[in-house]
Amino acid sequence: MFELLLSDIESKARLGRLTTAHGLIETPAFVPVGTQGSVKAVSPRELHELNAQIILGNTYHLFVRPGRDVIRHFGGLHQFMNWDGPILTDSGGYQIFSLAKLRKITDDGVHFQNHLDGTPTFISPEIAMEIQAALGSDIAMVLDECPPWPCEHDYAAQSAEMTTRWAKRCKDWKERNAERSTFNVQRPTGESINCQPSTIDSLLFGIVQGATFDDLRKQSAQGIVELGFDGYAIGGVSVGEPEEEMMRAVESAEPFLPADKPRYAMGLGTPPQLLEMIARGMDMFDCVLPTRLARNGTAFSATGTLNLKNAEFARDKRPVEEKCVCPACREFSRGYIRHLIKAEEILGLRLISLHNLHFYLNLMNRARAEIKQGTFDQFRKTFVAEYKTRDATTVE
Amino acid sequence: MFELLLSDIESKARLGRLTTAHGLIETPAFVPVGTQGSVKAVSPRELHELNAQIILGNTYHLFVRPGRDVIRHFGGLHQFMNWDGPILTDSGGYQIFSLAKLRKITDDGVHFQNHLDGTPTFISPEIAMEIQAALGSDIAMVLDECPPWPCEHDYAAQSAEMTTRWAKRCKDWKERNAERSTFNVQRPTGESINCQPSTIDSLLFGIVQGATFDDLRKQSAQGIVELGFDGYAIGGVSVGEPEEEMMRAVESAEPFLPADKPRYAMGLGTPPQLLEMIARGMDMFDCVLPTRLARNGTAFSATGTLNLKNAEFARDKRPVEEKCVCPACREFSRGYIRHLIKAEEILGLRLISLHNLHFYLNLMNRARAEIKQGTFDQFRKTFVAEYKTRDATTVE
Repeated sequence: MFELLLSDIESKARLGRLTTAHGLIETPAFVPVGTQGSVKAVSPRELHELNAQIILGNTYHLFVRPGRDVIRHFGGLHQFMNWDGPILTDSGGYQIFSLAKLRKITDDGVHFQNHLDGTPTFISPEIAMEIQAALGSDIAMVLDECPPWPCEHDYAAQSAEMTTRWAKRCKDWKERNAERSTFNVQRPTGESINCQPSTIDSLLFGIVQGATFDDLRKQSAQGIVELGFDGYAIGGVSVGEPEEEMMRAVESAEPFLPADKPRYAMGLGTPPQLLEMIARGMDMFDCVLPTRLARNGTAFSATGTLNLKNAEFARDKRPVEEKCVCPACREFSRGYIRHLIKAEEILGLRLISLHNLHFYLNLMNRARAEIKQGTFDQFRKTFVAEYKTRDATTVE
Repeated sequence: MFELLLSDIESKARLGRLTTAHGLIETPAFVPVGTQGSVKAVSPRELHELNAQIILGNTYHLFVRPGRDVIRHFGGLHQFMNWDGPILTDSGGYQIFSLAKLRKITDDGVHFQNHLDGTPTFISPEIAMEIQAALGSDIAMVLDECPPWPCEHDYAAQSAEMTTRWAKRCKDWKERNAERSTFNVQRPTGESINCQPSTIDSLLFGIVQGATFDDLRKQSAQGIVELGFDGYAIGGVSVGEPEEEMMRAVESAEPFLPADKPRYAMGLGTPPQLLEMIARGMDMFDCVLPTRLARNGTAFSATGTLNLKNAEFARDKRPVEEKCVCPACREFSRGYIRHLIKAEEILGLRLISLHNLHFYLNLMNRARAEIKQGTFDQFRKTFVAEYKTRDATTVE
């Protein structure tokens, strides 16, 4: 499933290749976020043109709307949204803990009311697996509890232990359902299988928790690795903690993750943070910043973010970023895009979304090339030094 | 400039070809509306893929934001928005009378406060021409007063007479500035000329007013035609009057328009209305319905509009319209688009906008083919009979 092609000498950066039912993913890889079955403002065709290798679908959001049965009716998320590349689905845990109301967590699972209409719902590790199987996920995630920041050591310890117990139940569910899925594989209707890869073909990643406590991160990593998964994610990071705490959480867990499996740092981050995470041995990243900041008129560049609403860009004939080959920079000026954003024209946020996604995807492309050349660590240092966060990089 | 290729025998429908500085337009033609320098939610590249022949830019909106000087700085609207096809600009009159505040109309021109920040502004026929020249319009419109509906005969008569006097001043301005423009044509910098065609290359259309009064429509048409323009528009229609009144306004003016010039029915309408207008001798149309209704989740089809928010479409695997070759129907289902609209995902309104624009452009394509074959009138009758307005076709 995963080949580790190269390990950097000066850092922990890795070059790898992950095989999924819908195609190969070269790592380090950025995973654009398609929360509700759409990477915001961008079409699947445009994602292909941007060379996106994989996208993420949010299990919680899709479960709440349009619902598991609707997506199953359409033959899975790939067919529903017309994306034929790999799809990673989160377990829904993060949104249950950040969006839903009236949560009640027990060892069985989570009772909550969804954020849209308050419908009382229950999700267990097994149900999270079932939903992801209905979506036809290529990479499924175990259900985890994502504790808030800050968080007491006791709570974080108990929570991480429960996450490990839930991870085991997810793995057990998958093993129990492998045979049933094999039956699906043998069905004569080739198309529907291609869209909802059988559970046996899909990968399952475990999630390391433990908040900002070194001992808990280590214990969690050891417990999860012992269960054995196709890949390992670091969860519970980028939830409001200082950047050093985030880096430490990854550094505490990483030594206990096997080298021959992909590592996924969930829900982050800024461009420098991604390079720092790669240097700490992480392979995959998902983040809403490229599309979320675009809707706010903020574009990424190698020297930091640009707020295109600023008056200084009104007569600027240059592209968002010089020499950028994205569809926005090839054809449009900063001045025009600024006008579109000021006038609340949708094309404005479309163009910045394309640029920002290209920026993130291209950064990973560059990182892979630098790892291959043995120059990654110098590249990272130079990039981080030249990158300035001139505007907000987090938006509510 | 305009060739009348064919006149229908059973109706007044015409097949024609209009030459502009940025390309040919086959008529009957639909002109997508790019109010603020962007056809809402659609890129110039997508407009080309939809075979849009020409688009409209709203002089008032672009004058208010980003302003004439900014667009002149970028070399005109073509370069600013990266659209290399023909652009028609309205005069700004309609928006001054529908959007601006504290209007004061005199024979000199109109004093008003713009709707964005209330800046006091004055636009005269000459200033309207200057702005359109700065935009680099291929087809400019004279400044007119668009009286409201309903409207007294006296007011409509005086207003139409003033519109004729303003039309003369617009024509005079163009003649005075033709020589200055010839100088521009001889400049060595080919590119900037291509983007702001010299005034001598741009076409100027007169506008017939006269509200819903037959005698005034006739007088206005005669007065405007006597001045001599490159084309003739029917203005002051589709402003709230019953459909029969709209048809009558066009029927009253049409016999007085020369056959060898294009006729443009401004700001309308539904698909059946467009065919009825073609049957009454009209050649060009602009309308916000395709993009405006799209943002409301409403799609056009040959049997009427579909409100894709309706629950009936949740599991519908069919495209918006069977056999449609637009980018939305080729790749996406009604069920998916419904989900996107319900979830307020921008891709949903993008896809319906593409479908609706394709529907309007393709309807004109079909009308041209039917006129060529001598079957237009039968086509019109069948289409109108089968088309049902199931949902609102006008949105505020």
